[in-house]
Amino acid sequence: MSGNSFGSIFRITTAGESHGRANVVIIDGCPAGLPISQAEIQVELDRRRPGQSSITTQRKEADKVEILSGVFEGKTTGSSIALMIANQDQRSADYSEIKDVYRPGHADYTYQAKYGHRDYRGGGRASARETVARVAAGAVARKLIAVAGIRVVAYTVQVGDIKSVTVDPLQTTWHEVDQNPVRCPDQDAAKKMEKLIKEVRKQGDSLGGVCEVAALDVPVGLGEPVFDKLKADLAKAMMSVPAVLAFEYGAGTAVASMRGSECNDPFVVQEGEVSTESNRHGGMLGGISSGMPIRMRVTIKPTSSLPISQRTVDIHGQATEIRTKGRHDPCLLPRFVPVAEAMTCLVLADHLLRHRVSRISYLLTNT
Amino acid sequence: MSGNSFGSIFRITTAGESHGRANVVIIDGCPAGLPISQAEIQVELDRRRPGQSSITTQRKEADKVEILSGVFEGKTTGSSIALMIANQDQRSADYSEIKDVYRPGHADYTYQAKYGHRDYRGGGRASARETVARVAAGAVARKLIAVAGIRVVAYTVQVGDIKSVTVDPLQTTWHEVDQNPVRCPDQDAAKKMEKLIKEVRKQGDSLGGVCEVAALDVPVGLGEPVFDKLKADLAKAMMSVPAVLAFEYGAGTAVASMRGSECNDPFVVQEGEVSTESNRHGGMLGGISSGMPIRMRVTIKPTSSLPISQRTVDIHGQATEIRTKGRHDPCLLPRFVPVAEAMTCLVLADHLLRHRVSRISYLLTNT
Amino acid sequence: MSGNSFGSIFRITTAGESHGRANVVIIDGCPAGLPISQAEIQVELDRRRPGQSSITTQRKEADKVEILSGVFEGKTTGSSIALMIANQDQRSADYSEIKDVYRPGHADYTYQAKYGHRDYRGGGRASARETVARVAAGAVARKLIAVAGIRVVAYTVQVGDIKSVTVDPLQTTWHEVDQNPVRCPDQDAAKKMEKLIKEVRKQGDSLGGVCEVAALDVPVGLGEPVFDKLKADLAKAMMSVPAVLAFEYGAGTAVASMRGSECNDPFVVQEGEVSTESNRHGGMLGGISSGMPIRMRVTIKPTSSLPISQRTVDIHGQATEIRTKGRHDPCLLPRFVPVAEAMTCLVLADHLLRHRVSRISYLLTNT
Amino acid sequence: MSGNSFGSIFRITTAGESHGRANVVIIDGCPAGLPISQAEIQVELDRRRPGQSSITTQRKEADKVEILSGVFEGKTTGSSIALMIANQDQRSADYSEIKDVYRPGHADYTYQAKYGHRDYRGGGRASARETVARVAAGAVARKLIAVAGIRVVAYTVQVGDIKSVTVDPLQTTWHEVDQNPVRCPDQDAAKKMEKLIKEVRKQGDSLGGVCEVAALDVPVGLGEPVFDKLKADLAKAMMSVPAVLAFEYGAGTAVASMRGSECNDPFVVQEGEVSTESNRHGGMLGGISSGMPIRMRVTIKPTSSLPISQRTVDIHGQATEIRTKGRHDPCLLPRFVPVAEAMTCLVLADHLLRHRVSRISYLLTNT
Repeated sequence: MSGNSFGSIFRITTAGESHGRANVVIIDGCPAGLPISQAEIQVELDRRRPGQSSITTQRKEADKVEILSGVFEGKTTGSSIALMIANQDQRSADYSEIKDVYRPGHADYTYQAKYGHRDYRGGGRASARETVARVAAGAVARKLIAVAGIRVVAYTVQVGDIKSVTVDPLQTTWHEVDQNPVRCPDQDAAKKMEKLIKEVRKQGDSLGGVCEVAALDVPVGLGEPVFDKLKADLAKAMMSVPAVLAFEYGAGTAVASMRGSECNDPFVVQEGEVSTESNRHGGMLGGISSGMPIRMRVTIKPTSSLPISQRTVDIHGQATEIRTKGRHDPCLLPRFVPVAEAMTCLVLADHLLRHRVSRISYLLTNT
Repeated sequence: MSGNSFGSIFRITTAGESHGRANVVIIDGCPAGLPISQAEIQVELDRRRPGQSSITTQRKEADKVEILSGVFEGKTTGSSIALMIANQDQRSADYSEIKDVYRPGHADYTYQAKYGHRDYRGGGRASARETVARVAAGAVARKLIAVAGIRVVAYTVQVGDIKSVTVDPLQTTWHEVDQNPVRCPDQDAAKKMEKLIKEVRKQGDSLGGVCEVAALDVPVGLGEPVFDKLKADLAKAMMSVPAVLAFEYGAGTAVASMRGSECNDPFVVQEGEVSTESNRHGGMLGGISSGMPIRMRVTIKPTSSLPISQRTVDIHGQATEIRTKGRHDPCLLPRFVPVAEAMTCLVLADHLLRHRVSRISYLLTNT
Repeated sequence: MSGNSFGSIFRITTAGESHGRANVVIIDGCPAGLPISQAEIQVELDRRRPGQSSITTQRKEADKVEILSGVFEGKTTGSSIALMIANQDQRSADYSEIKDVYRPGHADYTYQAKYGHRDYRGGGRASARETVARVAAGAVARKLIAVAGIRVVAYTVQVGDIKSVTVDPLQTTWHEVDQNPVRCPDQDAAKKMEKLIKEVRKQGDSLGGVCEVAALDVPVGLGEPVFDKLKADLAKAMMSVPAVLAFEYGAGTAVASMRGSECNDPFVVQEGEVSTESNRHGGMLGGISSGMPIRMRVTIKPTSSLPISQRTVDIHGQATEIRTKGRHDPCLLPRFVPVAEAMTCLVLADHLLRHRVSRISYLLTNT
Repeated sequence: MSGNSFGSIFRITTAGESHGRANVVIIDGCPAGLPISQAEIQVELDRRRPGQSSITTQRKEADKVEILSGVFEGKTTGSSIALMIANQDQRSADYSEIKDVYRPGHADYTYQAKYGHRDYRGGGRASARETVARVAAGAVARKLIAVAGIRVVAYTVQVGDIKSVTVDPLQTTWHEVDQNPVRCPDQDAAKKMEKLIKEVRKQGDSLGGVCEVAALDVPVGLGEPVFDKLKADLAKAMMSVPAVLAFEYGAGTAVASMRGSECNDPFVVQEGEVSTESNRHGGMLGGISSGMPIRMRVTIKPTSSLPISQRTVDIHGQATEIRTKGRHDPCLLPRFVPVAEAMTCLVLADHLLRHRVSRISYLLTNT
């Protein structure tokens, strides 16, 4: 109700502030019998972890996950799964500046106005640190959808003005993505992006970009009409992540200037299966997965925290300036990639389960 | 759970197929004491109604709404409000073609694959006809948010390659929007758009476009961290509408190539209120309304149903062709405009209520 | 949120007042492929219908149900199912008395205090007339659980001081229950109950009683720890019905004075299946169905509306008296029986579906 | 969805097994600005703690709570509140017996049948140990409802055949309740109950009983028609607790043999407020609080775990016997009392918030 839960059957609830004791997520609705280990979750957290490369924030967080419940002898029990990631680097910092000044592009002002009382340390609940809980839960979701053969991969396709050539998600795995710190599988573009990030960081500025996310081998039939279309839930998932300003799938914004005859994907039969010749529909028709690859693009704004001076006001309504001290990602893309994957896995896990109750014939097995 | 409900406190549940008996919506959670009449709801339905102009479908539907419950002596009672719009034009049509053939760009195949059994008449539940229930409920939501002074307006800004010059939503009302059948308040662009739509229709083809939606005088504080950010719920609302492929707000996709110093909106104080100098953040920071205008852009694909021949397959997996007979909108934008407004009103009504329970101090009044 | 929905996967939302236009229910989450007809739903409504016997209210309502959506060619489509029961007997009555006076035992005062505005005609939304929507939806739920072999039966076991001898639910069907207007399968007790009801009605008074509800052949495994235990959801279902003051299952209140050694049911193996020797646990252990019959008892208060004079106050706070004019059930039990069955079917339908997503192994079939 | 959440606006989600790492609860929807401390929560946990008296289990658990998030500078922030209670006494026990044998009266068999895989250590998630999370969350709920002046108190009124004389909840506080280990404010009855418990424990047996719960100074208007009646949500809350078999409120089961003229409570005006002369309606009319004290009775079965031998079967379907070794409460009532209070506080907190969005006039303040 207050926005800390996501999903309907496979449902997560998160808690935790940037500089609080810990981030916690409870997963309710994960079926029993799924093998999962702390180590498997840790792998995903390590991809999101601060300090992992020269172009990410140098905040020190081990981000070690602990499974507190719901897993027994290496398998889920059907009970709620609690995961905790303790915060280590709770600097006894001097927060006097951000305590009293609204940082441009941040939620300081809106939280203060909404709640009348806020945890200003590092942005509190509004910090992107909360995505650590999403990634932990997403690791469990990924294992669940893997049971149905689904694979999810995300990667950077644009940083500032530098765009990668079109990447084929079918040929892309973590192996290609993680070969460079930008997480762009087009290695030439990645080099330019990395260079640009370093330059802009030196200028005390930051960069936006675009992430592409793909879900492969998604069975046909996932998505619930009319409000919980798969595209709608994926859009919400992505737009719920800090700094995301735009979402599109398939041909996306380009369809505005297409004719219907150019846009529709003709149906064909391939190896006995209904498929489409092209994939401008991005793997979803009527909000339901079609069996074709699901492709989405997500636009992220440049990091709001900047070491250079910005004009703003303080909580007393006085004009002032602010410089945010150190330890921020100059570009959010590299660490957004695992978050985008996590959110996609969470949506697909939920819809995979929801789809299991959509036909009487599905109920007759194993009852 | 199966996707026919939307909202959490102000929650709607809809039912109805394109060629069934009626479309129905139940609104649960509308506070008692709100004045509302059938006539007020009808005004909004008339803006969405088929056959309203030369460039919309000629399907005949009066779309007369009946309030079945929840309103007494002209005011809501706090009980659930049921609204019904009977279908009149349930042609005893020959459905044999679409019964057996998957229309490109439509949900025929995915529904069949998901459910194993579908109402093929006019697309059944997958038809955009279901949006009639959204608009009816949206009319009630609009009255609710008007209590808090909020105003919502949408309009066409692009049809095919024709784009309007930038429209100022603050100066735009239904009066400007409804002066032309395209619903574009830039009257010059509107003429060109109308002409293009007529040309393309003659060719048996269809057009996509872009709709801008604005919410004005939204109080600061609406939106719930972290998953139910206002931007996330608005994105879901829009993406849940048939034919929508992209959503962006504020500076949108343009932020990808901005620097942080260009993107952040400096805070200022105007007339004693915290505000921002510019509005690249589109009225939402940290997913919470900032008090600045909320601005969104939504991209709609060209109508999938085309009178010209399209390649496809039938339910037996045989290659075939299909021409969709008459009565389709050559461009969805004009009738999408009221739907976009309705969805925005529904999200804001829900978040307005949710915000009322976010502070202890709000609870102490009137208990 | 405002209480007009029930269930999580198999979820109903209802609307309608006693003397409004219609009662409506939307069922969201019924799987596709379930055969259902208007006639099958009507059978259940006819058991609840007013005026069906000499000991029920003589209000005239045909209670004809219409399926507005979600069913095509005799089977559910997976889309939301809207059912409507129009109100016929909306007497242009003189409501001046109940408009201004709070009827003892009724919700007039609490609705007025809660909402500040109420539909006073016949009790509005607080009237037991709303249960007509529950029974309609329950008919669909009954068909769903029948797919899994589950059978639900309810009957009167006490009216005033007259108790039936213990009834064996395993031997009880509608045939036995409906042989008398009291709906008590102990035909001797039924005669005495009927006689008592007629006597008390002549006195201008009313009677309470007890209903037993049984669910048979429920597969082991339904119910979700820890809050949505099957017993908890059944209790809520029953307690949500007007006039219900107590709920118990299995040995019920009698366990207060038992020893553990008397109360526990020893496990045994019968025909290769784990079972229990006795059934003091009422078919649920840890809130999950055990495979044994589920048995519940529900206590209903005497009808609050009485033709004899009762002391009360009016909306101006003045002491006054009220006599409720005619047409009320002198005892609610006979018409409560189908409502109790409906609520039980709704809970079991929901939990049957929920159980389908509780194990990974269940997901591997038919994906 | 899988049953580990409770409430709609004030919503808790719990996780944790009897012998796992920790029990965790996330509270979502607690308004900002509520003062709360670890110490205040601890007081309530200490009332539920094992080993607190001679008649409770001797399991050693400090049950120390940690606030992990959502509270800053002593007040709630509006963000989700995570509370953790680590398990200390995770004995490296020999579980071989309960691993393979179904304990009568327990959920071993039903969990195994439902999930195919269970955490058998101490009953896993089915253990009443999970109620520790309920009590922690209930402490926060109690502080919230205290803002509206609501007070909740519970106490033992029956143990085995020993019943207390009628207790007046208006005169009863923790002070009276906690004067004896049975938590019965009738001190004479309490002595007899304590004696009986000790005797029965010596015999290796256990006792059931009855708990009364009262909510005082509840404002009129809480409860949502039609399914989320206050009585329905309270019933669900109580019935969701392990070992509860019956729930009643007001005159309860006694109404079965009353006449309407005996059962209805006449309305009167006292000190300018509408009230009732008697309170057989237990403070709720039409499922909405009437302003009179809410009174409920809850029946608890005798502890299922017994040191004496019980017949049962093992997981291979072989007949066997089981004796549960030590450390069990011979009677659950004393430790059920704080759980009953917690559940009542949780329901009232939720409905207090829900009520705040039931009238337009409530929305106009402070927006």
